[in-house]
Order: sequence, then C-alpha cells, then structure tokens
Amino acid sequence: MKQQINIGMLGLGTVGSGVFQVLKENQEELEKRSGLPILIKSIVVRELEKERLVEVPSELLSTDAASVVNDPDIDIVVEVMGGIEGTKDLLLTAFRNGKSVVTANKDLIAEHGDELTLEATRNGCDFLYEASVGGGIPIIRPLRKDLAGNRIHEVMGIVNGTTNYILTRMTQSGMAFEDALKEAQDLGYAEANPASDVEGWDAGRKIAIVASLAFNSRVNFPDVDTEGITSITARDIEYAKELGYAIKLIGCAKETDTGKISAQVFPALVPLDHPLASVNGAYNAIFVRGNAIGQAMFLGLGAGQMPTASAVVGDIVEAVRNFHAGTRGKFLVDCYHKKEVQSSLENHHRFYLRMEVADQAGVLGAIAGKIGQHDVSIQTMFQKWADNQTAEIVVITHETREGALRDALNELSDMPHVKAIKQTLRVVN
Amino acid sequence: MKQQINIGMLGLGTVGSGVFQVLKENQEELEKRSGLPILIKSIVVRELEKERLVEVPSELLSTDAASVVNDPDIDIVVEVMGGIEGTKDLLLTAFRNGKSVVTANKDLIAEHGDELTLEATRNGCDFLYEASVGGGIPIIRPLRKDLAGNRIHEVMGIVNGTTNYILTRMTQSGMAFEDALKEAQDLGYAEANPASDVEGWDAGRKIAIVASLAFNSRVNFPDVDTEGITSITARDIEYAKELGYAIKLIGCAKETDTGKISAQVFPALVPLDHPLASVNGAYNAIFVRGNAIGQAMFLGLGAGQMPTASAVVGDIVEAVRNFHAGTRGKFLVDCYHKKEVQSSLENHHRFYLRMEVADQAGVLGAIAGKIGQHDVSIQTMFQKWADNQTAEIVVITHETREGALRDALNELSDMPHVKAIKQTLRVVN
Repeated sequence: MKQQINIGMLGLGTVGSGVFQVLKENQEELEKRSGLPILIKSIVVRELEKERLVEVPSELLSTDAASVVNDPDIDIVVEVMGGIEGTKDLLLTAFRNGKSVVTANKDLIAEHGDELTLEATRNGCDFLYEASVGGGIPIIRPLRKDLAGNRIHEVMGIVNGTTNYILTRMTQSGMAFEDALKEAQDLGYAEANPASDVEGWDAGRKIAIVASLAFNSRVNFPDVDTEGITSITARDIEYAKELGYAIKLIGCAKETDTGKISAQVFPALVPLDHPLASVNGAYNAIFVRGNAIGQAMFLGLGAGQMPTASAVVGDIVEAVRNFHAGTRGKFLVDCYHKKEVQSSLENHHRFYLRMEVADQAGVLGAIAGKIGQHDVSIQTMFQKWADNQTAEIVVITHETREGALRDALNELSDMPHVKAIKQTLRVVN
Repeated sequence: MKQQINIGMLGLGTVGSGVFQVLKENQEELEKRSGLPILIKSIVVRELEKERLVEVPSELLSTDAASVVNDPDIDIVVEVMGGIEGTKDLLLTAFRNGKSVVTANKDLIAEHGDELTLEATRNGCDFLYEASVGGGIPIIRPLRKDLAGNRIHEVMGIVNGTTNYILTRMTQSGMAFEDALKEAQDLGYAEANPASDVEGWDAGRKIAIVASLAFNSRVNFPDVDTEGITSITARDIEYAKELGYAIKLIGCAKETDTGKISAQVFPALVPLDHPLASVNGAYNAIFVRGNAIGQAMFLGLGAGQMPTASAVVGDIVEAVRNFHAGTRGKFLVDCYHKKEVQSSLENHHRFYLRMEVADQAGVLGAIAGKIGQHDVSIQTMFQKWADNQTAEIVVITHETREGALRDALNELSDMPHVKAIKQTLRVVN
C-alpha cells in the first residue's frame, strides 16, 4: 500500500506552472479527496536556468525526461510540455514502466490516441486527458461517464479561445482580422505563429478527440475537415450582424442516419439568439445532443493557465484515487466501433455567399437560375452595393448538400457575369 | 465473475418509464460501454393493473419492494419511486445485502445523504445519484471528479424547471402567477400540489446536495434558507424588466471568507446580460466558481422523463463497470469537513424593494433616511405612480448585509407614512 504518490512533471510552461501552483495551494484538500499525499518529485524543463512563472525548488528540476519516465519512484507522469512523436515515445515508456499518465496534449491524442490507450490498458495504467479539450470545462469525462446512457447524435460548439477572441473583437469594434490577430498576439492569447489556431487545426484536433468518445469510434485529426478564419472580413461580420447573426468558428461532429461520422471545423453564421452567439472572448462552449438527454451545454474558459490546470489536477486526483483504491487501469476501450468518416461534401448546411458580379440587368436571375440547377434553393438574395460596373450580392441558401453547393459555385465562377466569389460560409440553424 | 447484471427497479412512473426505455433502446451500446449485459429482472409498482407509459412484460412487475432489495439475484437497485423514510429503509437493506444503488431521489439525499453514504461504504457498494440535481445535466460527478482540483467558492443557478417555466411565462406574456401556475399544471410541468416547487423546497434540496459536494461538508435541507415565487407579481416582473433585469428563482451556495457555508434559495433580479437571464422554460443552468477553473456553467433540461433517465442510466453504466472491473464501493467520503452553515442574515446582497407610501412631501427623504440609519445605502429610488393618497416607490440598494436590511424594513413598516412593504427581492450582480 502506497503512503504517498510521486509525480513527475514533463514541462513547466504556462500550464505546468498552473498545475504546480494548484497542487501547492489546494494540497490539503487534494489529499483528502484522493486519499494520499501528492508530492512533485521531479520536473523536466528545457533549460535549468530560466525565469519561471512559479517559484520551484531547483533540486526538483532536471532536463532528462527519459530518467523521469524510467524512475521507479514516480507513480504518475503529468505531461504538459507538448510535442508529438518524441512525447509519444516517452509516454509509451511510462506506461511500460507501470505509470499512470495525465496529459493536456491534444495534438498527441488526436494523432496517436489509439496507440497510447492500448499501451495504457495493456499495462494496467490510467491514461487521462480531460485538459486536452475545452481547458477547464468538463467534457471528456461527461462524454465517457455522465452521458454514457445516451446514443450521442452531435457534439458541436466553440472549442478555440484564440479565434473566438479575434472574432469577438472584430464583431465588437469592427476591426480587421489582421488587427484583431495582432492584438491577440500582444495580449498573449495568440502565438507568434498563429496558424494552428487561425487555420482551425487546434479546433480540429479537439473535435477529433470528442468525436472519438461521443461515437465510440476513433476519429483522427486528418479525418476532420478544417477551415479557419483568415478569410473573414469586417464586411462579412457586418453583413452577418445586419442579417441577425454572429460569426463564430464552429467545431462539429455528427453521426449521420447511415451510421457514418462527419467531423468539421468552419467559421459559420450563428443566429444572435442562439446561446453560442453570446459566448465571447476566450470562453468556449460545447453542446452535446443525445437520444435521452436532448441537449446540454458546457461553458467555461477554454484555455489559460489556471482553467487548464483545473482539468489536469482533476485528472491527477482521479489517478491518485485509483492508486489508493487499487482500481487503476480499469477502464474499457472507448473506441469499440469502426465507423466511416464521411466526406464533408456529403454534409448538409445552409450557406452564406458573398460575390461580386457585373452590374447588369438579368444577372441576379442568371445566378439564381444556375444555383437552382444544382438543387440548391435560395432563401434570401440581395444586393449590397453597386458602382458603375460591379455589384456585390449576398445569398443565403436553404439547407443543401455541401457537394451540390460546391458544384454550383464552380459553375458560377465560370460565368462571365460573376467577377469573384468572395466568401462562402455555413449558417448554423 | 458475473456474466450479466440484474437490475431491480423501484418505481415505474415518469422517470422509471424513461429508464426502462433508454435501457432497451440503447441496450447494445450500454453493454459495450459497461462491459456486461444489463437485464431488468423486476420492477416494483404500486398497482399491478394500470396503464403504463411503456410496454412492460407483466411477469417483471411486482408490488413487493422488500423482496427486490432482498433478492440475491439483483445486483443494482434503481430507485425512482420517491419517498423518504420507507425508501431509506429499503435502500439501507439493499446496501446491507451488497447491492449498488442508483437513485434520482433528491428529497431522500437532502435529508439522509450521510446515513446512506455511510452504509454504502461499509458494505462496499456504489451509491450514485447524478439524477437528483439538474435532470440530465452532469453536475454531481463534475463536482466530485472533474472539479476535484479546485477549492470551490460558489455554486449557483436555476435548479428548478417548474418555477423557471412559470417565471418565463409571466415574463413573456405578462401573466399573473396563478395563471402561469395553472398553465404549468395543465401541461404536466407542475404538480396538483405545487408547494414543493413554488415554495423553493425542491430547489433547496438540490442546493443542499450540491453544497455538500462542493464544500465537502454535509448541508441538509433544513440548513437551506428557502423562499419561493408565490409573492412575485406581474408588476414586479414588469418593473424588473424596465430596470434591465429578469426575475429568476436562484439557488445559491457559497463558502464565506471565514470558512462558513451559506445556502439559500430566493427569487432574484438577474441582469438581462447575465447568462442565467436567458435560461428559459424548463431549462436549468448551474454556475460553479473555483480557485482554478474560474467559472464554468452547465446547462440543460433540468427535469423530464428522458433527461432524468439519461442521468440515471449514466449512473447504471458506472455501477455495472464497477461490477465488471471489480472496483465497486471504492469512493472516498465526500463530506470530510464539518463547516458551519451561517444564517442568511449574515449574507450580503443588493435588494429590490417595492412599497406603498403616503403621497406627501418629504416622505421619500424620510424613508431614505431611515434606511440609511441601518447602513443600507440606496443605489436607485424612484416613484412609479401616485393617486391622491398613495405613491408606489421602488428602491434598489447597494450591497448590504441581509440582517441590516431586515432591521431597516422592520422599522420602515412601523413608520406612519409607510402603508405597505409589498416586495423584497435580492438582486444578483
């Protein structure tokens, strides 16, 4: 019977410092809740000499990750350093050495979730990653446990705080995308290389993780069709507002009637009276729809030092409880189905189109006719402005198969009257 | 090693029928998620001959609850019949016979949570009650697990769907309380005897349960100061709207700076831009604030057949998993502290007051002066109408100790100019 639990931390950046701080601040409560004292035995960092966000005894620090995952005194490895291939190898070694692992690393799980889960199961270890999606918001455990009575139909929502901050600023003050991105970078919300956030990859990884749990079938990141927010202009935001919508980056995973999975990330028009429309700044919100619960929504700070640390430490408490109670590694495999992920061309959405056309009589009719030939039905179509030669028109379609819309757009762009299709966005009902 | 799990159900009313239906509809998935086939072996009902909401083989039905909790073939007792004393005895017997128990019975837990938890622990059985608060919304397990890394400061929100429906109808169509209640009764949202809902008792029981888990110290229903919505008039709703607020029945549990707990249920003015203001109809929403997570909100249908069944079946899956993995009854005691519950007179709130006074010069000044003598500071004070003799005034105070406000009101009601204090409501920041 263990008298205490020793933690080995890989990483002491923003999230790692938060974990260190929460373990220290809430120490007494955590021992009562988990059954055993929790001690940090070693922390692996890149450089030993560096200014830290928290004060850490220097004897805890090392640069040798391999020695931590091989240290027989370490019970739980807490991985908050990021990285994919090298990190995967370290965690596989940790499992082979009988250690439980808590991680916040969505990139890793979205690429190698199956391999890691399998190795954890083989070695009777816990593998917990609540912090990988939605920061502090409970979503992984609810999908595995609280909602286990349901057949889940859909998981959708705002799962990236950086892009939500950028879109919120664009909406509230009419800023251009580049300016809002610059502000987010200055405030530390966006990284110097913002591609992972603004291209929708971060959201896509999170959608891969929740889809795997919701539908019990592994969805990997490359299966998710992602589209970012770099093409969103102040004009789109303004038109959306006039039409009664906000623009949000939406992650969405559904099970279709034929038992296939669809997984997408895209910027979309969200009706202003939809609860997601008022989720602003760095907040995330995730809707789950199931055949018993109907729908539920989970909202909170989707990133940041302390919210993410909240999720990591919640997982640590569970891992320690399992040591204490002798119930480690007793979870079932989540992905027991092999469902096909369908092309997003098969998905059905409403669409918002903005295009520049020749300002001539009959053009709107010709465009409407061309769109109609592809069985895409128009709900609203209006002209925003025209100069001598060019008119800008905005179209909202009824729900249509995405493939049909793409075919229509291809033909439209070949029409002599159509100068440019400037924007294509989905519209959430 | 068990080959299957046999369920004994106590009750087949609205929730029971939902549980029966979900277990049947999602049977295959539930077996994969829990590790074992789940069979309903017997269902205890009050009358054998009765029209049911679901089609149930008559050989499953019995009227003998005692024989079910004593049946050696039953592994899990699912209690969805309600009741307190008699039900408690049945569940204690179930634990002594080594059965796990899943229940939706908030009344029972809010009165005898400690005794039942203790007996479950003693006998190595699971005792799960996610469905007792918030219908299908995950809140019990998040407080015990996902948020276990936090020191929780506050849990607050809308936890009664019936009163939220009534207040929503009063707000949307200016109905009187009695008419909205009647409509709720006709639609089956409110019971023939609506006291438990409209007096705030149901919400008070739920607050007792979540407070116990949030602060790791048992709060029983009698510790919760409850106030219902029967005094809310169409006029209060209208004035609140004019001032930028909606009226909601709020349940609220906090830990004070001195380590005491405050637990209250009251109708309150909620700012229209607060997320709770737009939680309408039968929806519930619960905010949790903690020292790591900041704040998170959980939203969903707080009652009803299928959402409640979702929570019950989620607990059944966990109980079955624990049979399968040999990890039953391995939870720690939640209430390891003994914190004092403080009188609500010690709590601090802003207040909305509506009163009828003599329509004479100097009266407003005299009232403001009297209130000020008790260190209650006025934020807004205005006159709504006056006839020859009477004026109606509305006051919003700054944040003040509730005891001071009560003292002020006592003295005010003795003033010759004050004809009646018609309403006193709290205001949420």
